[in-house]
Amino acid sequence: MSVNASMSGFPEFDTAGRIVEDYVLRTVSEVFELHGFARIETRALEPLEELQRKGEIAKEVYVVSRLHAQEEEDAKIGLHFDLTVPFARYVTERRGQLNFPFKRYQIQKVWRGERPQEGRFREFTQADIDVVALDELPQHFEREIPLVMAEVFNRLPMPEVEIHVNSRKLLQGAGEHLGIDDILPVLQTIDKLPKIGADAVGELLGEQGLSASQIELLLKLTSLQARTPQELAAAHGLGIDSPLFLEGLADVEALLAGAKTTGKATIVADLSIARGLDYYTGMVYETFIPSAASLGSICSGGRYDSLISDSRHAYPGVGMSIGVTRLVSQMIARGWAVATRSVPTAVLVAVDSEETRSESEAIAAIFRARGISCEVSPQASKYGKQIRYADRRGIPFVWFSGTNEVKDIRSGEQVSADPNSWTPPEADVRPQVVAGE
Amino acid sequence: MSVNASMSGFPEFDTAGRIVEDYVLRTVSEVFELHGFARIETRALEPLEELQRKGEIAKEVYVVSRLHAQEEEDAKIGLHFDLTVPFARYVTERRGQLNFPFKRYQIQKVWRGERPQEGRFREFTQADIDVVALDELPQHFEREIPLVMAEVFNRLPMPEVEIHVNSRKLLQGAGEHLGIDDILPVLQTIDKLPKIGADAVGELLGEQGLSASQIELLLKLTSLQARTPQELAAAHGLGIDSPLFLEGLADVEALLAGAKTTGKATIVADLSIARGLDYYTGMVYETFIPSAASLGSICSGGRYDSLISDSRHAYPGVGMSIGVTRLVSQMIARGWAVATRSVPTAVLVAVDSEETRSESEAIAAIFRARGISCEVSPQASKYGKQIRYADRRGIPFVWFSGTNEVKDIRSGEQVSADPNSWTPPEADVRPQVVAGE
Repeated sequence: MSVNASMSGFPEFDTAGRIVEDYVLRTVSEVFELHGFARIETRALEPLEELQRKGEIAKEVYVVSRLHAQEEEDAKIGLHFDLTVPFARYVTERRGQLNFPFKRYQIQKVWRGERPQEGRFREFTQADIDVVALDELPQHFEREIPLVMAEVFNRLPMPEVEIHVNSRKLLQGAGEHLGIDDILPVLQTIDKLPKIGADAVGELLGEQGLSASQIELLLKLTSLQARTPQELAAAHGLGIDSPLFLEGLADVEALLAGAKTTGKATIVADLSIARGLDYYTGMVYETFIPSAASLGSICSGGRYDSLISDSRHAYPGVGMSIGVTRLVSQMIARGWAVATRSVPTAVLVAVDSEETRSESEAIAAIFRARGISCEVSPQASKYGKQIRYADRRGIPFVWFSGTNEVKDIRSGEQVSADPNSWTPPEADVRPQVVAGE
Repeated sequence: MSVNASMSGFPEFDTAGRIVEDYVLRTVSEVFELHGFARIETRALEPLEELQRKGEIAKEVYVVSRLHAQEEEDAKIGLHFDLTVPFARYVTERRGQLNFPFKRYQIQKVWRGERPQEGRFREFTQADIDVVALDELPQHFEREIPLVMAEVFNRLPMPEVEIHVNSRKLLQGAGEHLGIDDILPVLQTIDKLPKIGADAVGELLGEQGLSASQIELLLKLTSLQARTPQELAAAHGLGIDSPLFLEGLADVEALLAGAKTTGKATIVADLSIARGLDYYTGMVYETFIPSAASLGSICSGGRYDSLISDSRHAYPGVGMSIGVTRLVSQMIARGWAVATRSVPTAVLVAVDSEETRSESEAIAAIFRARGISCEVSPQASKYGKQIRYADRRGIPFVWFSGTNEVKDIRSGEQVSADPNSWTPPEADVRPQVVAGE
């Protein structure tokens, strides 16, 4: 299942890989819709001005212009690098027509002009959910979003997943308690914990002017992990008493209490999760696969209070985004998921001679009307050659219309059958996605 | 159902419009897969060199570059303007792995830097099917492709459709018969028939050096339309006897004979269909909606023998492409199709108080496990307010978890029910797409 493409960083799955990706996208959409998220799509291009509002990431933007554009004729535009910036613009443009809280999902390609490297693509698909409210967003939505994602992962063919959650209020509250004025650079340093470790982060914080006791408390705080409200109680023992800290702790506790996970996805309070982006104000999320830790986070997000606003209102929101292409390419590469065949076709209707092709086409029409995918053999060659045509594609059945017999080409079993009633076994009707060897 | 977006030519449907578009895309995919077409996706970007191979259209290309690219660092790339050029590249790259004949479908956005005008977009979705063979493509695939498209249109909420077919062999054969050496400029003039009419086309052909008798025969030929092989017999009366002409006539006759249309799509032999592109070599197709003729062709294509080739082989193919965005925007604007609601949600589970929210969430989980989309009310406000929340979104049912009662908010009927067994009527489980008023 190659993802080769002649341009580095622009993956293209083969047809079997596409069946895995389609299965993932259908599952994702289904879970999102079960929770009442409505699907939108935004254009791929945004004014450069909008794209550059999001700071650091802007260096990766692809700029777009018409080949024969007159100088200065067109506005400066670029390809979107995520689905959050376009969604913010969409909400602002349609604020008069939307019903708030507005729950949307969006599955689209995004583009980033990064140097391609393992598992990093320049073009890839993201699947986002967000809830955006008018003026006030109830806190329970910060609990809902990661639980929706947990349900997505529970249904996908992949190993166990941990959704790590934290609240900006905890680190910000700790900062208040410690008398640190500007917490953002501290957050950005803490964000480096998984890459460089606690000692190096401690050193960097020292260089940023923090005292040894400030650093000690922050490192103690960020080392805490908990899967139950009881385990999280250790955070109370740190002696941090700022109201913001206690509020954040209550938020995280409530999520752990409500996360009665029965599947493979677990919610883990992880007080080291900082997220570099400046616009998060409440809970933040990152998702890891412990058995494939090198993958990094496959699904991230958080709550933002002032990302979307106009002169009269704020539109606070909370959301998460799955990196679909990276996840699917790993599912395939690591054998978590395999398609049972590479074509939708369940039955190849053989052709005896070009003169009787229309009879085979009539049989095929009967199957299609009954929802069974089939092809008519491209050539009236010897049956052995027609069977090999099916075999090479993984088409499980060949139908002989002259005699109305059907052959399972895997077992070789051949039986008489009526095209108006014969149905392939459930597992053969469509290509299935199953766990690999 | 607005398609407003702040950039002209870049349409964005609202959530109800998206439900119509999703319905169309699902129907299209389903019919394609029933006929054994496998789904692929290609990257949005191609080398400019590839994009400019296709002649005239190249002026509309959007060029893409990294914002902070060093001079000459990157290859020149652009956004694809159709799905044919990328597919040709895909086949050439993977010719060693593909099983021929290779049947693929592809549904993706394309971009054209044209001046936006009514019904013309700069970003829009195309849905393509193609069959590509190694060295030889059996003619029956030229019959299959328009019949697959007819089945798509039969299933879509729209008025009657005519798929107009012709064969390049007819016009080329007529050219041979008339001693016209270079037929391509003649084809391109004939392509203007629907826009400027027969008189003006005759004048232009005269300016191109054709004699009055040549022009007379060509205009007689291109005026022919037929829905049955019998009607097409008139073409034999023109006295054109080149073998190529007779071969083309047989191809078109065979398609008419096999097109036992039972739905709203009709195959019409229309000998004026020329298609401006130089790479077509066999049958060509355009699709019109007679009751909305101003829309122009909504689905076009043809057979091409030398578009894809390498040093050792040719890969002849045949395909058609639906202009999905244009079609869907007209379905909505003309009221052919309407979504019954704008959100996936079938049931709003009311909340009595924030303290009992988890009980409402438990009810919602039961519904979701049973495949019923639901939301939990965002606020524990008065029931009247919660019902208005559902009403504004078109959510048909409100569930009261304290008493286990369900209210159909359209009729006002409220009954006791068990969340483990109660199911909304079939038509309310998901938003439906129905014919407009």
